[in-house]
Amino acid sequence: MKRNMRVGAILKTLMDYPGEIFTLNYFSERLKAAKSSISEDIVILKSLFRELNIGSIETITGASGGVMVKPYKSDEDKRRLLEKISEMLMGKERLIPGGFLYYADILYQAHYVKDLGEIIAQRFVDERIDYVMTIETKGITLGLMTANYLNVPLVVARKDNRISEGATISINYVSGSTGNLSTMYCAKRSIKRGKRVLIVDDFLRGGGTVRGMMDLVSEFESEVVGVAVFIDNRSQKRKMVQDYYAVLAMDVAGDQIHLEPQGL
Amino acid sequence: MKRNMRVGAILKTLMDYPGEIFTLNYFSERLKAAKSSISEDIVILKSLFRELNIGSIETITGASGGVMVKPYKSDEDKRRLLEKISEMLMGKERLIPGGFLYYADILYQAHYVKDLGEIIAQRFVDERIDYVMTIETKGITLGLMTANYLNVPLVVARKDNRISEGATISINYVSGSTGNLSTMYCAKRSIKRGKRVLIVDDFLRGGGTVRGMMDLVSEFESEVVGVAVFIDNRSQKRKMVQDYYAVLAMDVAGDQIHLEPQGL
Repeated sequence: MKRNMRVGAILKTLMDYPGEIFTLNYFSERLKAAKSSISEDIVILKSLFRELNIGSIETITGASGGVMVKPYKSDEDKRRLLEKISEMLMGKERLIPGGFLYYADILYQAHYVKDLGEIIAQRFVDERIDYVMTIETKGITLGLMTANYLNVPLVVARKDNRISEGATISINYVSGSTGNLSTMYCAKRSIKRGKRVLIVDDFLRGGGTVRGMMDLVSEFESEVVGVAVFIDNRSQKRKMVQDYYAVLAMDVAGDQIHLEPQGL
Repeated sequence: MKRNMRVGAILKTLMDYPGEIFTLNYFSERLKAAKSSISEDIVILKSLFRELNIGSIETITGASGGVMVKPYKSDEDKRRLLEKISEMLMGKERLIPGGFLYYADILYQAHYVKDLGEIIAQRFVDERIDYVMTIETKGITLGLMTANYLNVPLVVARKDNRISEGATISINYVSGSTGNLSTMYCAKRSIKRGKRVLIVDDFLRGGGTVRGMMDLVSEFESEVVGVAVFIDNRSQKRKMVQDYYAVLAMDVAGDQIHLEPQGL
């Protein structure tokens, strides 16, 4: 197999499984080429990614070492994408009576949510995340894509207790904006003890739901090492959570909604 | 830029956006190369995909023509993956009292659900799908990945009416297995009239939920052109839906659960 075909084959594998470490041996056997040739192929891929500023291919040294694609978008690509999404979200037809914003279609469009997930993953890639946790419903796609780029499982908390989840752990939480008390549930088998969890949600208003997820993670004797949200409603000043990363910030004044990139 | 780097750059773009058509002009401008060179690069990528049997790169001719990655997995890759997942699902610890099976973790692991979504997309890629529809909660990740490979939006029906969805269309449906009556809702703006919809769900028992989604699509004056599920419980003989594609088939006898690949 010629070099340019090998380069393509290696890239296909790395991109199919971002965050997963592949050894040189793996490619050497699969593509029937010397390890030294594979090594040179990877140098080519690295310089390609660097030159076009489209991502990051990393070599991990040591016994369990190898090569992997790391989540990465250039600042310019991030800005362009997030400004475009902000623009889309400010369309008049998206305002819903009661001061709500319709944004589900963005999170349900794979090519947007992939990029958004990669942006969040890039932020937390060095935090040794074991799980991404979210709560149904609208945060699930963003959680999945973030977990994809971090190469970890997604955990989905539920607002109802479902038989099909088996034994669950539940906590009660107060909605930060309405003050209502609710319960969230999570399958007991879904998080092991002593793990590092990144919480991802679609919208932050008062922060009660995120606070609930943080409590839930404690019940699993694991640790929350980060919180990321798609949209932060900045007009809600009092938050039950202080330290978080928001991709977009939203300001509401009367029936005017303004959005802008925040996580750059 | 050298050929092997161009090949990598083109592949990266095609893989980032499966199902999207890119013109030769696009690559020619972006990579500062003659269209004839880009054309040869694409020939290399095509033969790479064919030789390794890892996917399909298609050239679409005509005014809006260009090149795209089509969802494709070889029969051998499908069989290997689906047998592995079946095996995992037959673990004793997955049986939940009441004859339920715990499978959420598979659908919440990005690398499995990507492959499962690609398998479904491959089946329906020539059906000119406009939307993939699913219902919360566990089907969402599979729906998203299917929609990703078909390059169409996902639509998520909900079991509660949420203010943040704006105006909704709702239908009542009968659960095929329990006989209970429920309501499902879908944002009015989420599906345009006269479109072709693929329904994706995680589990088919009596088929009442799928039947409900079919009714919902009719209310949008659109058409269901396919139904795909992750697991079909074959032990439930009476189904409210006849024509569907299942990735895995499940048989239950007492507390024994057997799963096997079906969609090969």
